[in-house]
Amino acid sequence: MLYKEVVENIYKELKNFRGEGKVADYIPALSKVNPDSYAISVCDLEGGEFSIGDSTTKFSIQSISKVFSLAMAISHFEEKIWERVGREPSGTAFNSLIQLEQERGIPRNPFINAGALVVTDMITQVFPKPKQAILNFVREISSQDDIYYDKEVAQSELEHSHRNIALANFMKSFGNIKNDVDTIIDIYCNQCSISMNTAELARSFLFLANGGVNPLSGRRVTGHRSAKRMNALLLTCGLYNESGDFAYRVGLPGKSGVGGGVVAIIPGKLSIAVWSPELNQNGNSYRGIATLEKFTTDIGISVF
Amino acid sequence: MLYKEVVENIYKELKNFRGEGKVADYIPALSKVNPDSYAISVCDLEGGEFSIGDSTTKFSIQSISKVFSLAMAISHFEEKIWERVGREPSGTAFNSLIQLEQERGIPRNPFINAGALVVTDMITQVFPKPKQAILNFVREISSQDDIYYDKEVAQSELEHSHRNIALANFMKSFGNIKNDVDTIIDIYCNQCSISMNTAELARSFLFLANGGVNPLSGRRVTGHRSAKRMNALLLTCGLYNESGDFAYRVGLPGKSGVGGGVVAIIPGKLSIAVWSPELNQNGNSYRGIATLEKFTTDIGISVF
Amino acid sequence: MLYKEVVENIYKELKNFRGEGKVADYIPALSKVNPDSYAISVCDLEGGEFSIGDSTTKFSIQSISKVFSLAMAISHFEEKIWERVGREPSGTAFNSLIQLEQERGIPRNPFINAGALVVTDMITQVFPKPKQAILNFVREISSQDDIYYDKEVAQSELEHSHRNIALANFMKSFGNIKNDVDTIIDIYCNQCSISMNTAELARSFLFLANGGVNPLSGRRVTGHRSAKRMNALLLTCGLYNESGDFAYRVGLPGKSGVGGGVVAIIPGKLSIAVWSPELNQNGNSYRGIATLEKFTTDIGISVF
Amino acid sequence: MLYKEVVENIYKELKNFRGEGKVADYIPALSKVNPDSYAISVCDLEGGEFSIGDSTTKFSIQSISKVFSLAMAISHFEEKIWERVGREPSGTAFNSLIQLEQERGIPRNPFINAGALVVTDMITQVFPKPKQAILNFVREISSQDDIYYDKEVAQSELEHSHRNIALANFMKSFGNIKNDVDTIIDIYCNQCSISMNTAELARSFLFLANGGVNPLSGRRVTGHRSAKRMNALLLTCGLYNESGDFAYRVGLPGKSGVGGGVVAIIPGKLSIAVWSPELNQNGNSYRGIATLEKFTTDIGISVF
Repeated sequence: MLYKEVVENIYKELKNFRGEGKVADYIPALSKVNPDSYAISVCDLEGGEFSIGDSTTKFSIQSISKVFSLAMAISHFEEKIWERVGREPSGTAFNSLIQLEQERGIPRNPFINAGALVVTDMITQVFPKPKQAILNFVREISSQDDIYYDKEVAQSELEHSHRNIALANFMKSFGNIKNDVDTIIDIYCNQCSISMNTAELARSFLFLANGGVNPLSGRRVTGHRSAKRMNALLLTCGLYNESGDFAYRVGLPGKSGVGGGVVAIIPGKLSIAVWSPELNQNGNSYRGIATLEKFTTDIGISVF
Repeated sequence: MLYKEVVENIYKELKNFRGEGKVADYIPALSKVNPDSYAISVCDLEGGEFSIGDSTTKFSIQSISKVFSLAMAISHFEEKIWERVGREPSGTAFNSLIQLEQERGIPRNPFINAGALVVTDMITQVFPKPKQAILNFVREISSQDDIYYDKEVAQSELEHSHRNIALANFMKSFGNIKNDVDTIIDIYCNQCSISMNTAELARSFLFLANGGVNPLSGRRVTGHRSAKRMNALLLTCGLYNESGDFAYRVGLPGKSGVGGGVVAIIPGKLSIAVWSPELNQNGNSYRGIATLEKFTTDIGISVF
Repeated sequence: MLYKEVVENIYKELKNFRGEGKVADYIPALSKVNPDSYAISVCDLEGGEFSIGDSTTKFSIQSISKVFSLAMAISHFEEKIWERVGREPSGTAFNSLIQLEQERGIPRNPFINAGALVVTDMITQVFPKPKQAILNFVREISSQDDIYYDKEVAQSELEHSHRNIALANFMKSFGNIKNDVDTIIDIYCNQCSISMNTAELARSFLFLANGGVNPLSGRRVTGHRSAKRMNALLLTCGLYNESGDFAYRVGLPGKSGVGGGVVAIIPGKLSIAVWSPELNQNGNSYRGIATLEKFTTDIGISVF
Repeated sequence: MLYKEVVENIYKELKNFRGEGKVADYIPALSKVNPDSYAISVCDLEGGEFSIGDSTTKFSIQSISKVFSLAMAISHFEEKIWERVGREPSGTAFNSLIQLEQERGIPRNPFINAGALVVTDMITQVFPKPKQAILNFVREISSQDDIYYDKEVAQSELEHSHRNIALANFMKSFGNIKNDVDTIIDIYCNQCSISMNTAELARSFLFLANGGVNPLSGRRVTGHRSAKRMNALLLTCGLYNESGDFAYRVGLPGKSGVGGGVVAIIPGKLSIAVWSPELNQNGNSYRGIATLEKFTTDIGISVF
């Protein structure tokens, strides 16, 4: 298994990489994580799986959950989703209100906070119990039943969500949030609080490497074309204002979260999840991106 | 040859597609082109080539030239190029001064006008006769000796270059243009005026599909990694403020020009150039993008 | 009484002025007002008073209330108020989030919505019953006991306050709102709903023409210097993005509200209030500004 | 003479005020000035004049010249001037391109650089020898024949005018500069280089305190209304992004230049010019503004 060796070497090499970046501290629940944590998991389409490091420790997936809610919304609304959210890179900081004002309440893409709130709003329109539906969805695509919201993290998020409440109210003033703001913020904070380990995360992204079908269950998650298009979105918009740099250095569709997780896929081949909680100034895992850059360089495969 | 049939079918289907978009008219020399013009050329890495339509008619490549000047600069400066230009999508209109002011004279990426002016400035620092050097470079990568500047177009561009002069002076006030502004604008207007047909354009992009080596001559144009990274840049930033949409619909690294040309590559496989002068509101070829969208859909291959 | 004749002539001349502008309709309660309503009231420092038209009809004072809350806050916090709000014209639309983001949650001035929300937050920090305190304050400076909140308007405002909730939450994320957002929004919506007629409004601005002392009661409202400085603020920032134009055409410190009221003062001489509900595109009373422009032209007095 | 004593006291008190701010150094010619220089001159409408300090030393008036060119343009174009330049405070830094882009090449007001360039362009349309005409105009309103351009400063400005060339080209791309950009920049750099002392500057602003008539010569400079309206513009926009603060602290129409000069007027009474070359972070004379603040406080007169 080629990638096993590559991953082992990277893990060895970066195991003691430290001292740069810092753990997210805007909510107490996140700041308590061990900054030395490091895990890599790879899953391939043939059912192969390899993990190393703290790959059984669960952590807060945060913005990685935006990929799951987008997949749920796309599988239901398909192309109609783009009436309420764009698909262009944002060009400014991820929680910026500036473009949102200039563009009359239509967020640039589903991976900035404003866009993810609209996606959550859309899910809430079609699922009677949205919080349970999200959990069910994630459990299914990760083939793992014991995935839960972290209530402490969710509560902490809720208490620090003034900026997201501002975004939601702002979009509501343009008519682009349909449900009650408090409801959406509650679902959104819960969705971000989901706890998973790298093995579960790598598995849950496999459908994107496989044209929309979960290879473990054989069940279709999204349409073939939708899966490819979600990959395009991840490549152009998945890492906030650092997406261009990530495409340049790593060359794969990917998504990060401030909990320190970052997941990427090689279409037709595999998915890879990394966890390392120290973040760079753009809020992305410092060692996580370094790991992925080495991975595509060493394995000699990127989408380019 | 699989793609031959696909291309023939698309050509037949879109031959009479019209009535949307309009030909660039900001300079007289461009507005005189026949709006019905339509050509498609494909080149593969095995030396296969197929063209259909007006593929022997030369047209103004305009912003597609930014890829050539970037390749020249990257082959000389390599990673040092990023000290003077970024690699993130711009998020605002392609000639916008706003981000340039907020980011202290460092353009977002080499494919917006400001970034291309910086790249031209870098070339001018290392080539004693930059205009001849650019021509030589394009002739070599397209294996075509009779490629010239269109003096009428260049002159026309010069007379309508107030916005670009503003950009260059603005960056000079931040110290990010080293040469005389008039010199840079003259070279830049000439570079945009290069005339090529789709067959030549497709050939000239082959090195990007082939890890930096021109497969026709066997000569290395850029490093392997630089070629892959240029593809990443093309995918995230190649179509101005429509890059996300192009990635979503077409799924390939590509570059467009207001002359109506658009070129894309499938890494490891082929390059494809389309010409159709009517532009959409973002300044990209209306039928050109439709052609490429059908191409990747029908052939079933994108980078995702 | 010189101004009596001037006002009578203006009233006659503009009585049938109509057909331009439109009544505020973002909340139902405001849209029900008679668009033909027209009233002018002038008060001088010697106790003279003259009113014409619908000067006994009460209307919603809306943003004019920002002057009252600022006076309350300044009389308590004095120069410390400027630690939390600026005193520069805003340069963009009155409810813009853009500058607020660039300036890290410190609103440009107390007369844009964000600034007024901060002022309301400051009042709430020092008055145990802020809603009653505001009412008492307005009753005292207008020498009128029957001034009340319009509960229907306040309720309507509350239901349409997504943008203001966004502003308040956004500032709270920067630490510049201290109280609970819901509390502040409730007080703010009530404050805007105060109903007054032009005679009461003219009287309530007299202290600004008199160095901070209410000439009717002889009681000091703000310090001498604070009153002069509030006038400077009104002149540079009182009419949103139209302040420069108002200074140019009218040449007096003034404040407008979307209920159609507009009040101005001539330092050392008089105050004048006009009501005419049809608004121009900047949200200021169309005929109200025309009335004031004619007034300063005919009376031959402005601050310049 | 009341103001004589007030000025003498202020001069004494602030004579040794130093160590804050720094002399403009973006061009060598300006950086050579003695930072300790300090002068105050007052002129009243009765012909009284009082000067103290370095009031016979000429210095570069820089942006104060924008008032003179505006007066020339207004006396010729009157209200038509506002078709090409606005009269609202700018809200962003004085050389900002951002608002200019959002507002399609129409500068916010005549006192930001972009606006002054448009005014110079208008003058150039009507005066066959604009540089001589400007000099003649300033000589007349200051009753002083030996006023000249400082050729060294003008040349230095020209060599550092990339930002202004950018502004002019940018506006030309919107059609709001009619003459050749090089011509306008040359005139503009010369106009800024005019050398005057405080006595001459105070005299040259007297027409603004006197309804448009120069009280020394009895000749009308601008219409009565135009003079009052220029005062309104000076109050709302005269000190760049510090205009609101200046109105708040000083309460008079005024104009500053990076040469360290600042001039203000009390309508119907007097004009006052101060020179002290050390600038605050907004590019306004640190001690100049402090002097004016003390002056209006001590004399007890402002427009408010």
